[in-house]
Amino acid sequence: MKILLVGSSGTIGAAVASALEARHEVLRASRSHSPFTVDIASADSIRDLYRKTGRVDAVVSVAGSAAFRPLAELTDADFELGLGNKLMGQVNLVRLGLDAVADGGSFTLTSGILARRPMPGASSISMVNAALEGFARGAALELPRGLRINVVSPGWVAETLAAMKMDPSAGTPAAEVARTYVQAVEGSMTGQTLDALRAGG
Amino acid sequence: MKILLVGSSGTIGAAVASALEARHEVLRASRSHSPFTVDIASADSIRDLYRKTGRVDAVVSVAGSAAFRPLAELTDADFELGLGNKLMGQVNLVRLGLDAVADGGSFTLTSGILARRPMPGASSISMVNAALEGFARGAALELPRGLRINVVSPGWVAETLAAMKMDPSAGTPAAEVARTYVQAVEGSMTGQTLDALRAGG
Repeated sequence: MKILLVGSSGTIGAAVASALEARHEVLRASRSHSPFTVDIASADSIRDLYRKTGRVDAVVSVAGSAAFRPLAELTDADFELGLGNKLMGQVNLVRLGLDAVADGGSFTLTSGILARRPMPGASSISMVNAALEGFARGAALELPRGLRINVVSPGWVAETLAAMKMDPSAGTPAAEVARTYVQAVEGSMTGQTLDALRAGG
Repeated sequence: MKILLVGSSGTIGAAVASALEARHEVLRASRSHSPFTVDIASADSIRDLYRKTGRVDAVVSVAGSAAFRPLAELTDADFELGLGNKLMGQVNLVRLGLDAVADGGSFTLTSGILARRPMPGASSISMVNAALEGFARGAALELPRGLRINVVSPGWVAETLAAMKMDPSAGTPAAEVARTYVQAVEGSMTGQTLDALRAGG
C-alpha cells in the first residue's frame, strides 16, 4: 500500500513509519524535516499536501497539539489549540482527503488514553481525544467506497517518559504502540477506538 | 437549592424546570422568553448572566446547538457551530461559573446518546457530545471546593419524535429524561456520563 503518514517525525510517528515501511510505501509528512510538510491547523496546507501526494491507499495521522494545563489556568487560546489543531486538524485530514484515498482505503487518527483515563491538567486534552473518537464512530457510517476510519488511543509512551526523567517501565514502548497503527491500516475494522498500551501501561 | 437552568425553554429544559421546581428555586435562562437571557456562544453573555444571578448552588445546562448533516456536506461553519455553541458554550458555563457556584455545588451539562450510538448525518454531533463527556471526566478531578460536574446523555425524546411525526414510543418522555438531571443535581457523583433513556429508547 501507499500510505501517507502525517506526524512522522514524532516519537510514535517515527515508530509507525518504521513498522509500516516493512511492508508498504510510506509518504512521510510533518511540520518540517520530512519529505512532505504540512500544518494540519491549516486547511490550505492540508489541500496542498494531498495535491502533492496524489492518490494514496491509507492516511495515518499521529499529529496534533493540545494544551496540558490546570483547568483554572486554561485560556481560550489553549482550548482553541486543541480544537483547531489536534481535533479539527485531524478531522480535516479526513474531510479534505476523502477523494485522495483509494477505494477500500482507510484513515487512522490519534486520540490518547486521557480520553477515558483523565488526570489533573488534562481536561482540554480529554475533551479533544474523546471528540476524535466520537467523530470516528459517526463518520465510519458515512464514508463512501468502502473507506474505513479508526482512532488509535496510545497510552503513555516509554520513550516519552524516559525523556521526562520518569520511569519508562510505566509506559509502552513506541514500537509496541506502532503495531496498533499497522493493525488499523491492514485490518478491516471501522469506527473503532483501538487502545495501544500494555496492561498497566 | 438555588439552581440556574440554562436552556429552560426547550422540550427537555421545560421538563427539567418542572422537576427541579418541586423542591428547589430555579432561575430559568434561555436565549429568549425566559427571566434570564443568555447566548452561550458568547463568553460576555455568560459573564453577564452570572453577574445577574449571583451565587447559585447548581448550574444545569440543557442548551447547545450543533449541525445534523451528512459528512460530505458538513461545512466549516457547521463544525464551528457545534464546537462554539454546544461544546464550548457549555464548557464556558463551567469555566466562567466556577466562582458563582457555592461550595459543594454542581454543574450538569448535556451531551446525547449519539456520542456512543452514532447514525448517518450526526458525525459532528457525535464528536461534540463525546467531547463534553471527556471534558467532564477531566474537569471533575480539578474542581475546587467540592464542586461536582456530570453530563446527562439523553436518548431520543418522545415529544421530539412526535413533533417530527415519528413514533414517540421509540423515545423516552421528557419527564423521564428530566429525572436524570435531578439525580445529577441532588446526587454525589462526579465526572460521570449519565444516560437518560428507556431501555430500547
